[in-house]
Amino acid sequence: MQTYTLDINCDLGESYGTYRTMMKSDEAILPLITSANIACGFHAGDPATMRLTVEHAMMHQVAIGAHPGLPDLQGFGRRIMEITPREAYDMVVYQIGALEAFVRASGGQLHHVKPHGALYNMAAADIKLAQAIAEAVYQVEPELYLYGLAGSELMMAAKRTGVRGVSEVFADRTYCSDGRLTPRSHHGALIEQPEAALAQVLRMVKEGKVIAVDGTEVPIRADTVCIHGDGEHALTFAQTIREILEAAGVDVTAYQAT
Amino acid sequence: MQTYTLDINCDLGESYGTYRTMMKSDEAILPLITSANIACGFHAGDPATMRLTVEHAMMHQVAIGAHPGLPDLQGFGRRIMEITPREAYDMVVYQIGALEAFVRASGGQLHHVKPHGALYNMAAADIKLAQAIAEAVYQVEPELYLYGLAGSELMMAAKRTGVRGVSEVFADRTYCSDGRLTPRSHHGALIEQPEAALAQVLRMVKEGKVIAVDGTEVPIRADTVCIHGDGEHALTFAQTIREILEAAGVDVTAYQAT
Amino acid sequence: MQTYTLDINCDLGESYGTYRTMMKSDEAILPLITSANIACGFHAGDPATMRLTVEHAMMHQVAIGAHPGLPDLQGFGRRIMEITPREAYDMVVYQIGALEAFVRASGGQLHHVKPHGALYNMAAADIKLAQAIAEAVYQVEPELYLYGLAGSELMMAAKRTGVRGVSEVFADRTYCSDGRLTPRSHHGALIEQPEAALAQVLRMVKEGKVIAVDGTEVPIRADTVCIHGDGEHALTFAQTIREILEAAGVDVTAYQAT
Amino acid sequence: MQTYTLDINCDLGESYGTYRTMMKSDEAILPLITSANIACGFHAGDPATMRLTVEHAMMHQVAIGAHPGLPDLQGFGRRIMEITPREAYDMVVYQIGALEAFVRASGGQLHHVKPHGALYNMAAADIKLAQAIAEAVYQVEPELYLYGLAGSELMMAAKRTGVRGVSEVFADRTYCSDGRLTPRSHHGALIEQPEAALAQVLRMVKEGKVIAVDGTEVPIRADTVCIHGDGEHALTFAQTIREILEAAGVDVTAYQAT
Repeated sequence: MQTYTLDINCDLGESYGTYRTMMKSDEAILPLITSANIACGFHAGDPATMRLTVEHAMMHQVAIGAHPGLPDLQGFGRRIMEITPREAYDMVVYQIGALEAFVRASGGQLHHVKPHGALYNMAAADIKLAQAIAEAVYQVEPELYLYGLAGSELMMAAKRTGVRGVSEVFADRTYCSDGRLTPRSHHGALIEQPEAALAQVLRMVKEGKVIAVDGTEVPIRADTVCIHGDGEHALTFAQTIREILEAAGVDVTAYQAT
Repeated sequence: MQTYTLDINCDLGESYGTYRTMMKSDEAILPLITSANIACGFHAGDPATMRLTVEHAMMHQVAIGAHPGLPDLQGFGRRIMEITPREAYDMVVYQIGALEAFVRASGGQLHHVKPHGALYNMAAADIKLAQAIAEAVYQVEPELYLYGLAGSELMMAAKRTGVRGVSEVFADRTYCSDGRLTPRSHHGALIEQPEAALAQVLRMVKEGKVIAVDGTEVPIRADTVCIHGDGEHALTFAQTIREILEAAGVDVTAYQAT
Repeated sequence: MQTYTLDINCDLGESYGTYRTMMKSDEAILPLITSANIACGFHAGDPATMRLTVEHAMMHQVAIGAHPGLPDLQGFGRRIMEITPREAYDMVVYQIGALEAFVRASGGQLHHVKPHGALYNMAAADIKLAQAIAEAVYQVEPELYLYGLAGSELMMAAKRTGVRGVSEVFADRTYCSDGRLTPRSHHGALIEQPEAALAQVLRMVKEGKVIAVDGTEVPIRADTVCIHGDGEHALTFAQTIREILEAAGVDVTAYQAT
Repeated sequence: MQTYTLDINCDLGESYGTYRTMMKSDEAILPLITSANIACGFHAGDPATMRLTVEHAMMHQVAIGAHPGLPDLQGFGRRIMEITPREAYDMVVYQIGALEAFVRASGGQLHHVKPHGALYNMAAADIKLAQAIAEAVYQVEPELYLYGLAGSELMMAAKRTGVRGVSEVFADRTYCSDGRLTPRSHHGALIEQPEAALAQVLRMVKEGKVIAVDGTEVPIRADTVCIHGDGEHALTFAQTIREILEAAGVDVTAYQAT
């Protein structure tokens, strides 16, 4: 009998200073996920938030990842910035280190790195930025996992560099026949029906493929699925996805290389 | 025959973004010092500067320390801020981690932590801030040395916490009879004559005491002496202090617990 | 028959970037107040928030004030910083100008300036900072009103400088016999009962005095009362205070010199 | 007899906090220029620097302009950021206001606005950003001049909006046959010989044309020429350009609409 496993990851620790409303949704989502991407102070997060979020994640035995972003608090790291590969390398090293110190101070161990927002998207498409980020992870700690978009430049850079890539899929996004996500600006980029989203995830995990918007079957590797932590809807979806996966015999657990 | 040792430390990596004039003085001072306190991005420094400064320090086999400061780039971390011990703990953990990642990525090892500017002064006088900083260092890595003002609250907190304190003295500052530095605002706070400054350092190292402004002899522990890196004058002084110490049989070397 | 007037002011525009929860409470409180202190990007607020908040305030015909704070977004401008009078002057000029540009672009006119948080408290107690802030207001526009704590150094500096001071009182804080607020750290600093708070405000407006914690009557000038905008409780209190004042014949209107 | 006039503008006030080396070159260049573009705290500059630079410019009777940039101090506003027109509008309004407050406090009057770095380049090529910036200037003060690249989208947006555009040319850059600057990444983008640069400026002013890299003559409007303020070379060039222009009968003066 074949075993299937899937990691469920979520962005956490995105409060800042006096803006703490996100702490509540963080606490609600923690029991439902297996790995947390914690903001490192560039696009969101601050030292106090990082410490608290690390502590909460450890209490729930959720694997902890650094979630480095562009230096753009005002834009929440979502605005594309033209940075050099060297700048990408430097900002990723810095942010991994900052988060890891809190993990170590809490007696834990850093599990992975997942770039945030615009940096994630840029690293998915730009080979040089992807390479720089993979090298940053490798230089700081070669045992760290690197989460990135399935089939992206970042996953290929990880492979080249000797970093263990973790292939991320999305439940509520549609895919093109070349394996890329349908851009958000396009019609049909989002899967509105929860049932369809759940079916897509199950197919990706158990069959290793996704049905693209043009109907073709595309092979895809699903190591981890990204879910959102804010909103009542998000919590219900997280609960459901977890139940459906477990009912289908999928072992929902933080990613571990086999 | 008794052996004397002394560490010479200097603040480095205080450039930021496009403001890079300090890189030149950093390169000039590196051959003369034995340990470097590298800014971590809060009061000065940025990821690129941190990487370059770590690389330069390693080339010169200078011991590397994190130099965490208050989150006040505009004020260069010199303006007192009323922060809680918890905030001090968090910002020190964050900054140690960020710097350490660059050290590790360069194949080196972090040697020490020395708070900067207003944080240094606050930690010298405030028992709760001192305790929080000592605990931050201990929690991240108990083997790290903690540099602080000789006889200060920070040195006592280090001892209580199990962190190895490194007692810092100043060549060009005068001392009060209670062992504290004469405040800068007071007349006679600075030693203007290089000869007098050198004589003070030698006495502190070899006799373990300093002559206070009122003429009394005060015991003092001199593990490391702080010098400045900028200005022609500073370089000459650094050169001279190193020659004088070595001529007097003092082993000038990065601090190591015996 | 004597006429009484009172201004009701509230801090608005304290959202930042992606953190927008405060926009909702801003919209709810606007119909109840007569003047708004809008954050200028140092302790909170950003250009988009400033524009939107100015537009909302104008729609409600609420008088608009600049609400300059310390450069400490992480601490929300609540942490004391040791700044020079010159630094206070510069940061107030800068922030008034930034906010005024949005007011002018919307076809409105800036009405007042009220320092925020730690800067407000520092300006209340420190004669030099108070003087610097009053001069900043005067130099930018001598017709601007300057809101400050009743009887504080800031109000005295305004008078000396030729700026029109607006004396601010608090409904829910108790006063000492010297006219100062009971420090928040003290027992009995807050008035918990809404009825008592309302009675205090009415007495301040109509009798020009407040009963201090030791029972003595202290003269006080009440030009404006500060209320909070967030929380269900705050809205109810704002509603009630407005009704009570109007029922007592007090003209609730933005402050205007007579 | 025909009269020719030309404005010489330079970016000033680009110091920040403790990084003050630029103040020296500012003082040296001021006697040679007719208008100053002063950084407003986003890409460089801080309140103290703004005040000092405004005061220096006024002493030298140099026309003062706001020099708004992207919110990227670390990248000095030179890194392209994907911002919306609305964000461009907001950040320009904010920065004009902040600078204008210092000008007003010094008894002066703001003369112009010139976007900085990446914002300048983006506004030259992107019609929507150009429109947003022109509207920002118009809304704050319709009498302000708007400096932009000759023939660019920003100049066309100024015209549409009713803002008076000031057409900027470069002495040391070559032009393409479509009137655009040769991109810096291309061979031959820079004019290395001072004599050739001076000849180009003279031709642009007196004949209203420039010889493109392919030899064609391109019409160009030269209202102002941009020079650099830092470096010994820059000062000499500024001195020379001013002498050559005056010798050729060109009236070197701050731009004024006729």
